[in-house]
Amino acid sequence: MEKTFHMTSQQFRDAGKQLIDWLADYYEQVERYPVLAQVTPGEIRTSLPSEPPASGTDTQRIIQELDSKILPGITHWQSPNFFAYFPANASEPSVLGDLVSSGLGVQGMLWATSPSCTEVEMQVLDWLAKMLALPEAFLSSGSGGGVIQDSASSSSLCAILAARERATGFRSNEDGCREELIAYTSTQAHSSIEKDVKVAGIGRRNLRLIDVDADFAMRPELLEKSIEEDERARKLPFFVCATVGTTSSLAFDPLEAIGRICKKHKLWLHVDAAMAGTAALCPEFRQIQRGLELADSYCFDAHKWMFTNFDCSCFFVADRATLTRTLDVLPEYLRNQAAASDVVFEYRNWHVPLGRRFRALKLWFVIRHYGVEGLQFHVRRHVELAQTFLRWVREDSRFELMAPAPLNLICFRLKGADQMNEELLRRLNRSGKLYLSHTRLNGKFTIRFCVAQTRTELQHVQQAWDAIRKEAESLLAVAHP
Amino acid sequence: MEKTFHMTSQQFRDAGKQLIDWLADYYEQVERYPVLAQVTPGEIRTSLPSEPPASGTDTQRIIQELDSKILPGITHWQSPNFFAYFPANASEPSVLGDLVSSGLGVQGMLWATSPSCTEVEMQVLDWLAKMLALPEAFLSSGSGGGVIQDSASSSSLCAILAARERATGFRSNEDGCREELIAYTSTQAHSSIEKDVKVAGIGRRNLRLIDVDADFAMRPELLEKSIEEDERARKLPFFVCATVGTTSSLAFDPLEAIGRICKKHKLWLHVDAAMAGTAALCPEFRQIQRGLELADSYCFDAHKWMFTNFDCSCFFVADRATLTRTLDVLPEYLRNQAAASDVVFEYRNWHVPLGRRFRALKLWFVIRHYGVEGLQFHVRRHVELAQTFLRWVREDSRFELMAPAPLNLICFRLKGADQMNEELLRRLNRSGKLYLSHTRLNGKFTIRFCVAQTRTELQHVQQAWDAIRKEAESLLAVAHP
Repeated sequence: MEKTFHMTSQQFRDAGKQLIDWLADYYEQVERYPVLAQVTPGEIRTSLPSEPPASGTDTQRIIQELDSKILPGITHWQSPNFFAYFPANASEPSVLGDLVSSGLGVQGMLWATSPSCTEVEMQVLDWLAKMLALPEAFLSSGSGGGVIQDSASSSSLCAILAARERATGFRSNEDGCREELIAYTSTQAHSSIEKDVKVAGIGRRNLRLIDVDADFAMRPELLEKSIEEDERARKLPFFVCATVGTTSSLAFDPLEAIGRICKKHKLWLHVDAAMAGTAALCPEFRQIQRGLELADSYCFDAHKWMFTNFDCSCFFVADRATLTRTLDVLPEYLRNQAAASDVVFEYRNWHVPLGRRFRALKLWFVIRHYGVEGLQFHVRRHVELAQTFLRWVREDSRFELMAPAPLNLICFRLKGADQMNEELLRRLNRSGKLYLSHTRLNGKFTIRFCVAQTRTELQHVQQAWDAIRKEAESLLAVAHP
Repeated sequence: MEKTFHMTSQQFRDAGKQLIDWLADYYEQVERYPVLAQVTPGEIRTSLPSEPPASGTDTQRIIQELDSKILPGITHWQSPNFFAYFPANASEPSVLGDLVSSGLGVQGMLWATSPSCTEVEMQVLDWLAKMLALPEAFLSSGSGGGVIQDSASSSSLCAILAARERATGFRSNEDGCREELIAYTSTQAHSSIEKDVKVAGIGRRNLRLIDVDADFAMRPELLEKSIEEDERARKLPFFVCATVGTTSSLAFDPLEAIGRICKKHKLWLHVDAAMAGTAALCPEFRQIQRGLELADSYCFDAHKWMFTNFDCSCFFVADRATLTRTLDVLPEYLRNQAAASDVVFEYRNWHVPLGRRFRALKLWFVIRHYGVEGLQFHVRRHVELAQTFLRWVREDSRFELMAPAPLNLICFRLKGADQMNEELLRRLNRSGKLYLSHTRLNGKFTIRFCVAQTRTELQHVQQAWDAIRKEAESLLAVAHP
């Protein structure tokens, strides 16, 4: 038989099952690895051949190299001792759903190119809107609907683009950005808003960073003042991004007040709830999104805190016609009968890329596996664990809290110099026992502790606190011997 | 023991292995399904519950529903009888690499957040540059380098943004698009260029669609004329997208002539080789990219014709500093020591999204499994099969060829009315035996036949041709009884 270089069906079955076990073993043993990869820049790369392989190799060797060459350079986001940044918590059902998506390898660029890819996405995003008690307008049965994007950066870019076109009567798409469009967000908003504003041709000097109150929430009176100044200067205010849970400290902008200002001045309100949005699965946390009915668009990342592996940013709009008119292009080679239908969405007009994989499948696996009650259980547990940690920090007078912490992110620091806190963070991360990240609040270097990993339990939070106290003691002993 | 709702390790092992077998069986049986899903709009959706599930369900039930509810709405991109659009050919090694990526669930937004994610990507894209014999400048050892994007649309958007900033001295990022920037591409370019130009705030009226020659390739003399007219009108020409293998008919723009014009007038040249780029794995096809050393950026999609499942668009730039300066934002919470290093890239500055999954892993699996020779083998085979089909069309006087077909796409039609060709296409696709798509060339409805599926063999091309002839005969019998 002629050599085809393909993997045979039997080889795929064997290697696939081996890799399923490899992953299951990995999850069981993940605590053995240092959470933060302990390699130096360039170390992984130089371990790989500089020339591409002329011939193929067997799968066993590839898996061996996965262990020996790739794994040492992995920072373990799925470790229960990962408390850095925001989480990207995966789960077994999600990984399985994604496996099927990779394997089917369909393109959902048009409804016709895989109807399930479009329709499961429509349905699952409607489920999510109901699970989170989002306003009715965000449902596909109304004037809006949801779509999966790769990241919150891309979701907010699409919001900005739709807002830009609504404000300019779709002239920006035609002639380019000719008016002085002005966008607003708080000083605490995610950096992607600045990036998006640059991408969209608006220019970052036309992004106003509104100051925040003592809780790091946007001050609506300053927002309105800024809008009115710009209006008087004959500029064109068009867009506000409010944040439900800022990256830095999980601050919550007052949506109702901001929303009323947006309505009054006819600005598009986008609400970025990238991580915290998931909390609204639980009725007791839904106050974070009070006022959301005033928003034009909303985004939260199921790939952050909802057990769904990246990428799965869920973006909802109240008026889909504006979004799709903004992003529509229809060349001959994409024309098809179903596109004319009103029953189904053509999702290629909901984001920048044309191609799209079947990402709804992993979300469907997750929601079907956990059910609403399972997801609520874990969100509540994470918040409870974070609140336990918060109590410990409060009870230890050597530490200070730097921001309100109503959910699962605690911002704290050792009372004392920034340098000592930087050293504390460095030592903890270098230990490999846990991984934390930092921010700067009121000018002070602040440590962030975020609880949302799939397998994080009380013992991990306890171990983390023990490690933090121990390193703090050793640092304080040197500072005040 | 308390109920945790998580899948246990054993359940994951069992269900994972079951789904590996499910996929292996699917590949073995894929020809049994109609290639194009035979459902009506809304059919899949209404088969799913309208309310989200309050409680979870067991994995067996989820897999059953995958079969009974999802699969009927799948258009089978991995079928060897898929000849539509461009392919999205996956392979077993790719699916396995992607499984590991889903499972590890790392974020490569910074080098530090998983060094392997950055370094394997740098290395594998350098491998690819060598495998394709791309110009040295596109290697990371030079001034450039490669990055994986989700799609060619996003790659060309980044090219346009970098070009926009280079042309305006980075003032567009600061102040917004204030100058009348003009972009150029051919009438045959992919629709994403128009979309990108709108996204970037340039406006589609400032995109010039240059006419093509009889082979559908851009006419460089018309390009230069158009640039000079715009220069005389005090506009700012800044960007040209040349296509190596257009979507419509796989036409090849003359890169050398276009490149010389771009150098002379100081325009950024982006080369979009989304599908055809893969052909350059074989030295005998490399003439398609002659002149590429004059380009500023280049893109081809490994997820189209290189056995790597979506998403994996490979984007190369000759001057990475301009790209990263265009897309850089650095808030406090992303600062870290390694970022200051010269040894590694910070890929978050190479595209719009901040988050990024470990996509290089599937590419690494594919290249390690097939080796250069295995990939060359399949590209050559696909071209050979397409050329066989081409010969059959040529030898049948009832059909006409509509465009040159040097590689793996054949554009043809029945001599006669558009309506008859539309009906031919409709009947073929409705039969479920094969899937073809269409375009319009010289005003005529044209059928596209693209050979690039992983498992397409001579028998499938033969069956396709038989089906086409049979349907054509029946249509012609009615037209000329």
